[in-house]
Amino acid sequence: MSSYSLAQVAEHNSSKSCWVIIKNRVYDVTEFLPEHPGGAKIILKYAGKDATSAYEPIHPPDTLDKNLPREKHLGTLSSNDVQALAREETERKRSHDELRMERAQREKPPLSRILNIRELEDVARNVLSFKALAYYASAGGDEITYEENIRAFSRLFFNARVLRPIGNCDPSTSILGFKSRIPIFVSGAALARLGHPLGEVNITRGCGKNDIIQMVSNNASLSFDEIAAARVSPSQPLFFQLYKRKDDKVAAEKIREVENLGYNAIFLTVDAPVAGSRERDIRAPFVLKEQERLAELETRRKDGIEPESPQDASESDEEVDVLGTAGGLLSTTDADLSWEKTIPWLKSVTKLPIVLKGIQCVEDAVLAAEAGVSGIVISNHGGRQLDYSMPSIEVLYRLRKQRPDVFDKLEVYMDGGVRRGTDVVKALCLGAKAVGMGRPFLYAQSAYGEAGVEKLIHLTEREIVLAMRLVGATKVEELVPEMVEQVSWQPVLAKL
Amino acid sequence: MSSYSLAQVAEHNSSKSCWVIIKNRVYDVTEFLPEHPGGAKIILKYAGKDATSAYEPIHPPDTLDKNLPREKHLGTLSSNDVQALAREETERKRSHDELRMERAQREKPPLSRILNIRELEDVARNVLSFKALAYYASAGGDEITYEENIRAFSRLFFNARVLRPIGNCDPSTSILGFKSRIPIFVSGAALARLGHPLGEVNITRGCGKNDIIQMVSNNASLSFDEIAAARVSPSQPLFFQLYKRKDDKVAAEKIREVENLGYNAIFLTVDAPVAGSRERDIRAPFVLKEQERLAELETRRKDGIEPESPQDASESDEEVDVLGTAGGLLSTTDADLSWEKTIPWLKSVTKLPIVLKGIQCVEDAVLAAEAGVSGIVISNHGGRQLDYSMPSIEVLYRLRKQRPDVFDKLEVYMDGGVRRGTDVVKALCLGAKAVGMGRPFLYAQSAYGEAGVEKLIHLTEREIVLAMRLVGATKVEELVPEMVEQVSWQPVLAKL
Amino acid sequence: MSSYSLAQVAEHNSSKSCWVIIKNRVYDVTEFLPEHPGGAKIILKYAGKDATSAYEPIHPPDTLDKNLPREKHLGTLSSNDVQALAREETERKRSHDELRMERAQREKPPLSRILNIRELEDVARNVLSFKALAYYASAGGDEITYEENIRAFSRLFFNARVLRPIGNCDPSTSILGFKSRIPIFVSGAALARLGHPLGEVNITRGCGKNDIIQMVSNNASLSFDEIAAARVSPSQPLFFQLYKRKDDKVAAEKIREVENLGYNAIFLTVDAPVAGSRERDIRAPFVLKEQERLAELETRRKDGIEPESPQDASESDEEVDVLGTAGGLLSTTDADLSWEKTIPWLKSVTKLPIVLKGIQCVEDAVLAAEAGVSGIVISNHGGRQLDYSMPSIEVLYRLRKQRPDVFDKLEVYMDGGVRRGTDVVKALCLGAKAVGMGRPFLYAQSAYGEAGVEKLIHLTEREIVLAMRLVGATKVEELVPEMVEQVSWQPVLAKL
Amino acid sequence: MSSYSLAQVAEHNSSKSCWVIIKNRVYDVTEFLPEHPGGAKIILKYAGKDATSAYEPIHPPDTLDKNLPREKHLGTLSSNDVQALAREETERKRSHDELRMERAQREKPPLSRILNIRELEDVARNVLSFKALAYYASAGGDEITYEENIRAFSRLFFNARVLRPIGNCDPSTSILGFKSRIPIFVSGAALARLGHPLGEVNITRGCGKNDIIQMVSNNASLSFDEIAAARVSPSQPLFFQLYKRKDDKVAAEKIREVENLGYNAIFLTVDAPVAGSRERDIRAPFVLKEQERLAELETRRKDGIEPESPQDASESDEEVDVLGTAGGLLSTTDADLSWEKTIPWLKSVTKLPIVLKGIQCVEDAVLAAEAGVSGIVISNHGGRQLDYSMPSIEVLYRLRKQRPDVFDKLEVYMDGGVRRGTDVVKALCLGAKAVGMGRPFLYAQSAYGEAGVEKLIHLTEREIVLAMRLVGATKVEELVPEMVEQVSWQPVLAKL
Repeated sequence: MSSYSLAQVAEHNSSKSCWVIIKNRVYDVTEFLPEHPGGAKIILKYAGKDATSAYEPIHPPDTLDKNLPREKHLGTLSSNDVQALAREETERKRSHDELRMERAQREKPPLSRILNIRELEDVARNVLSFKALAYYASAGGDEITYEENIRAFSRLFFNARVLRPIGNCDPSTSILGFKSRIPIFVSGAALARLGHPLGEVNITRGCGKNDIIQMVSNNASLSFDEIAAARVSPSQPLFFQLYKRKDDKVAAEKIREVENLGYNAIFLTVDAPVAGSRERDIRAPFVLKEQERLAELETRRKDGIEPESPQDASESDEEVDVLGTAGGLLSTTDADLSWEKTIPWLKSVTKLPIVLKGIQCVEDAVLAAEAGVSGIVISNHGGRQLDYSMPSIEVLYRLRKQRPDVFDKLEVYMDGGVRRGTDVVKALCLGAKAVGMGRPFLYAQSAYGEAGVEKLIHLTEREIVLAMRLVGATKVEELVPEMVEQVSWQPVLAKL
Repeated sequence: MSSYSLAQVAEHNSSKSCWVIIKNRVYDVTEFLPEHPGGAKIILKYAGKDATSAYEPIHPPDTLDKNLPREKHLGTLSSNDVQALAREETERKRSHDELRMERAQREKPPLSRILNIRELEDVARNVLSFKALAYYASAGGDEITYEENIRAFSRLFFNARVLRPIGNCDPSTSILGFKSRIPIFVSGAALARLGHPLGEVNITRGCGKNDIIQMVSNNASLSFDEIAAARVSPSQPLFFQLYKRKDDKVAAEKIREVENLGYNAIFLTVDAPVAGSRERDIRAPFVLKEQERLAELETRRKDGIEPESPQDASESDEEVDVLGTAGGLLSTTDADLSWEKTIPWLKSVTKLPIVLKGIQCVEDAVLAAEAGVSGIVISNHGGRQLDYSMPSIEVLYRLRKQRPDVFDKLEVYMDGGVRRGTDVVKALCLGAKAVGMGRPFLYAQSAYGEAGVEKLIHLTEREIVLAMRLVGATKVEELVPEMVEQVSWQPVLAKL
Repeated sequence: MSSYSLAQVAEHNSSKSCWVIIKNRVYDVTEFLPEHPGGAKIILKYAGKDATSAYEPIHPPDTLDKNLPREKHLGTLSSNDVQALAREETERKRSHDELRMERAQREKPPLSRILNIRELEDVARNVLSFKALAYYASAGGDEITYEENIRAFSRLFFNARVLRPIGNCDPSTSILGFKSRIPIFVSGAALARLGHPLGEVNITRGCGKNDIIQMVSNNASLSFDEIAAARVSPSQPLFFQLYKRKDDKVAAEKIREVENLGYNAIFLTVDAPVAGSRERDIRAPFVLKEQERLAELETRRKDGIEPESPQDASESDEEVDVLGTAGGLLSTTDADLSWEKTIPWLKSVTKLPIVLKGIQCVEDAVLAAEAGVSGIVISNHGGRQLDYSMPSIEVLYRLRKQRPDVFDKLEVYMDGGVRRGTDVVKALCLGAKAVGMGRPFLYAQSAYGEAGVEKLIHLTEREIVLAMRLVGATKVEELVPEMVEQVSWQPVLAKL
Repeated sequence: MSSYSLAQVAEHNSSKSCWVIIKNRVYDVTEFLPEHPGGAKIILKYAGKDATSAYEPIHPPDTLDKNLPREKHLGTLSSNDVQALAREETERKRSHDELRMERAQREKPPLSRILNIRELEDVARNVLSFKALAYYASAGGDEITYEENIRAFSRLFFNARVLRPIGNCDPSTSILGFKSRIPIFVSGAALARLGHPLGEVNITRGCGKNDIIQMVSNNASLSFDEIAAARVSPSQPLFFQLYKRKDDKVAAEKIREVENLGYNAIFLTVDAPVAGSRERDIRAPFVLKEQERLAELETRRKDGIEPESPQDASESDEEVDVLGTAGGLLSTTDADLSWEKTIPWLKSVTKLPIVLKGIQCVEDAVLAAEAGVSGIVISNHGGRQLDYSMPSIEVLYRLRKQRPDVFDKLEVYMDGGVRRGTDVVKALCLGAKAVGMGRPFLYAQSAYGEAGVEKLIHLTEREIVLAMRLVGATKVEELVPEMVEQVSWQPVLAKL
């Protein structure tokens, strides 16, 4: 394998010839540019340069092997220049955002102090990079559905029953036949390595140790292989969240791949045929740049250095990427899914149980039951797709009221806005078999890695058991609709 | 043509003999004083002086020709004094508001950074003069209807449908038979030149290039002629928003004028027989004066100059103009419109399609259908007329529920509070054929001129298409009432 | 008549012998102490001293003549001491509250700048003394009904009608047969002289000049005689708000008195058989004292004087008067009013029209109609009595829905929370014949005297006419229930 | 009895041999460690040391006699060391929290200034220690039910009746046949000595003097004996709030004990079979520690001492006690209460009237009536147990609407959120026989001891009588459901 110098690479810095360095290896990506799901432009920023820091947290390690022909793997960086790069990285002046993150890491509370999910999220918000937080936290449009997912739980109150023996309380359940210690699962959430170097594996291991099932995102930042390999035992179940590719064959191949890896169910994403518009994510690079500029100005002022009128934000003409991170991830997705074609096709290519993730109204829940799938996840993608989509728990509530028969035909799950054990219990009272959480797991692993994931499970378990006991139930089957009531007033907002 | 000196003009400074200079020409407006729609007083402020800066942004260029007999066009200012005036203008000390505006212009973000309508509005709020913003932003009474127009959309949530092929999505429609690229139009909004020197023409051109239809306000700050001339092609449709004058003949003449200019429909304003009370606008001159006084005081203080107890706001006895800008514009309007007389008369004088703009309840929508007009705009004038008029989208909602038959008899449009593509899609689900926007276009052209208008159209198009796809529709006809649901809770306020 | 020195008076400084000076006259009030409606204690504070400043703004000038036997009017203060008192008053150090009030008077905006009732109130809040404001502004308990009276209007929206000729609009009506220029009247509100030296007379004259009817409070700070004398013409109608005394004979005498003075109707107060608990008023003296202490401390600090640990608020053991101002005024009121006895008795002692002021529910409105009175005022005393009494406009709304027949049997008025012409029009749509305003008139005369009262009438007239026109009505009879709709959402709070 | 030195005690500082000093006596608690309801760990903190300050405010004085075998009462501290301990306590540097409390005590307003319950609470919040306040104020989860208990009253408005003779108004009632001066009672609330050294006795005496009945908490910080002894007369009724122990025999013994002491009824706690999760309480020690650290830092900074980087909160690895104070108190409670067993058992061991405290829905109220108990307290434990349990007054409202027959079968009480006399009157209108208050009594005695308790009773009485009169009632029986109406809007929040 050949060896290249930084100078040699630097010559290939245009769309005519575009080389990049990733983890000290040199790649020719010229012909790949038009195929890049995130667009050519983002790659061209690094043409002729080291792209490792931008590439790594959002691509599974096997991405290059799978997508770039072997002959474009040109060779390695010369060892001198490997050291030069490393030195450069070491000596590089930390940005204000990096300094903030480092301080946040040092000052974060010990895990034992964390009492609830919101505190896990608070820590994560501090230790995450500005851009990673923007990607995780962002939602569609004005983020109304994101907020209302949470607030909708607040309108459900309990009619708690007393004088029932609740000393022994068992919160376990099964999901598609797989045992789950408590009625929650990890809902597919992409790019865990943005928050923690070990990424999705933190979740896999934390779940495996606690009998919780992880639904692996199609857009995981680790390969499905690596994630499967991280299971604590070969029997640990994993679900696969499928974004169907336009090309049926490519899509079928992916399914075969995860089947072979031992994944246990296919969750077909139906609420994201095209990417939502997440302005917080789109805006992040510019907001960050402006923050850095102002911080720099402040530093100079303190140091008594003349400001020299550094470039104003308004002068920059760099173009905005209206797709944001999500747009890149979803650009190859099939926009023409249909009840008529997609479900039969999916049944034809796999024998795994099929669950539709992203059902947003009663009518589609009924159609799903008629289509003969194993389950549905009532979900609006955590508010990241259609803003003003009905909050998930409201859809569940309507389904229970209007079509209770659906619950007998398939398993109904929901995700979106779950932050407390009482939220889980409310959903179960309304007929949910289990409840998914996405962002909470991302935040937990960002804040404390695998231990954070375990903490999240344990504290949720404690809250679920407490709520079950205090409403008078000792098994999940005893949670019934009569135990919750939707109130007509606007409760005081939870202390977020 | 005679030539006059500044000194000569200055002698005619009273209601007995009142001369003014406009764009270096001298006019005798003594006899016109009682006829001035905005009242004599405002003119007398400039008696014997140059009135250009006050006159220009709110009067179409042909106003003087149309309203002042030729013999009162006295002549030109002497060339020496033309130069003196120009020098004076150059050397004039900028007011604090002007300095603020200039800074805002320099610092405004590049257009590429603008992600949504609210950001366009934010920029406009910065670059507009205090008085212009007060005129644009003001609404009737406590501005409740203005606010509720916006908030009412927030109570409509989607029952989104999935597993529908939405790869090809066409948001186009027709309005009165004219093609429209997306289901929006420019709702008549007066005095565009307050915000940008090119005024309404920015809108005409931006719309023409993008197949969007502009409804031209009766109170445009350019002549209907000039606006028609700005069309990008002769076939570009234009609608005319008529404020019917008291005198039927004068009114008929105006209609003939716009017919001859090729305007394609008459939108009769029915919600403004008299002017609303817009306190923000009325208060603006005094608030501004007080701001300037305080800013001046601050400047002197910094410069170490003794304040000399400058005149206190409370000492001034200048009278308040309770009509504000709107009062002046509407003072000649017919207050006695009626179903019995006005509609038949209008049909008798024009063959153009007739649309009633300002329908505010179900009953009047029914009457309009019975009266045989081509369409109605459910509108409360952007909240600028009757405060506590029912929000437009609420009226549309009631019309859909109570009288769905009306939608078969005429085209129903609405305006008021539209700020997002989801708002447009909600209105279309409820039966609107298209949706008007007024202030957003004024703000867009104030902020960035014609490019701002195009930006507004493009980003709204992107939002509409995204929302259509994510509710499961590929054509506007597929947007149906079942897709929206009015919720009984108070959603979190949009992050305005 | 004898003459006394300050020293002589000063000897009578206890409940054994209690003399006071009022307007340079000396009175022996020893025997009156137990009869004083406000309690003996408040008088004893001034025993042996000049009590003019405390006495004057809350007692009609004829109070002493009516209540103190002639022989207790001891005589005059010696002329030397009259001068001494005046000198003392002149040289007296102004309190911080007085200094604040004087500054507020100097800086208040010219009346021409006042655009609405809330701005009148704002000025009044500045120029009033802390204690007077506390009395005017206070309401019962947590002041919920006070606030909700205002907010309840905000849930009523208009179904405005268009294409109706509204050029000529006549807002006049009649109240009990007396012509009223606009459908409002002055609702009885006590102690106008707390806010302005001319007190109630400002209201009488402002109303008289504008054909508005004043209901005179039983607890006016001027005598009924003086108020009657202030009428702009003998035919100016005046209504009398009666607080019935326990003793029927005393009560009948009072009625005879006002009949003889030409008052035109009796409004019997039925919502205040005992005084409400107005904590803002009760707390005022202590809060003020603490404010003065802190202001004094601040002054000393600025002057570099050692604080000397001035007495702490907590050390004072002065007792709290849980009755407040209201308690004193109401202590002689009959707590045993009844449908069975009081109405027949009242009919037996007067032929004037009888109106019940303070009806708070539908049932009592029905009883009033059955009792054959001429009218009712739906009122909760401006929220000053029972906290959580249903807001007035809500009671009117229920009466219209549940018992529309009542409106045919008597005239229905309401007061409480009216701040805009649209509020008046809403109440009229629901069937009110006219609408009372209390605090707004007190604030108007406190801020600008008689001119303020006229301003209040004029701006309300302008608002009423505008709202009538824009809902499509030209006479009050055309305001119908269909024009208003109570909405189920919580509108944005008015910008108070 | 032997005498020990501090040095001798200090040697027994581990779980192997654990001695503690309490009030100058020495105890060997080694064998008791595993039995301690609050866990061994909290005791081990004081192993070999003086534990008085931690022990005293939360344990009844007879605790040691009852729970520790006589032979473990080792003896007394040597008199020298008694003095040494006292000196140490005197010279001990006060913590910032203690200094704050002492200042608050000095500055609290005189009792005569207190106008309502919220002001009593305000004073208590200032004078209480941080930890005591955290225990009193804490509630379950996000404290939603705590807040909503209060806010729910705010949705009930009065339909007040007028023209009824209300001069004589008698607010008295009976509870289980015992006379009560006003329709309130003290709801069981634990650990009064956290707030005041005399603890529960303040309440007993304040109630006894005013004919109000106290329900004594199972977890009182004084013995039931001491509380009984504090009665102002032998006939003063006392109720006992039972937390049933797992062991029926132990539970029966406790009942026999209080029967013998003359307690008059058993209120069985049914809403706390396990302890709620009160995060404010759990978090208190760490928050306090961090506050002290920051205050210390601030002090050093002021004194010009180098901070020496004192230990950061995040470095500490002290474990969190997720049970909090409540967990300790409830750990021996029977989690397996049942309608089938517990009620018959309870009836078999006592002839006292039985009341179920903690009914949270209509169904259980019906079951209680069927079970033949004497009464129920609709209660959610002040929001301290299940978060999102339906607010108490809402449950009462539903019971009145759905099952009015229940009120004929047993006495219905409620507690939770009562802060005003109007709240009490609302509950009575809906059928409550009386209303309990818990925290208000704890706050009252914390702020002002016994006098605070009396104040609370007196001001509540004044408010109840006023509200009764102003709704038109003179006896509690005249308070009927028609007098209250639940409104659909969200009233303005009370000015807490």
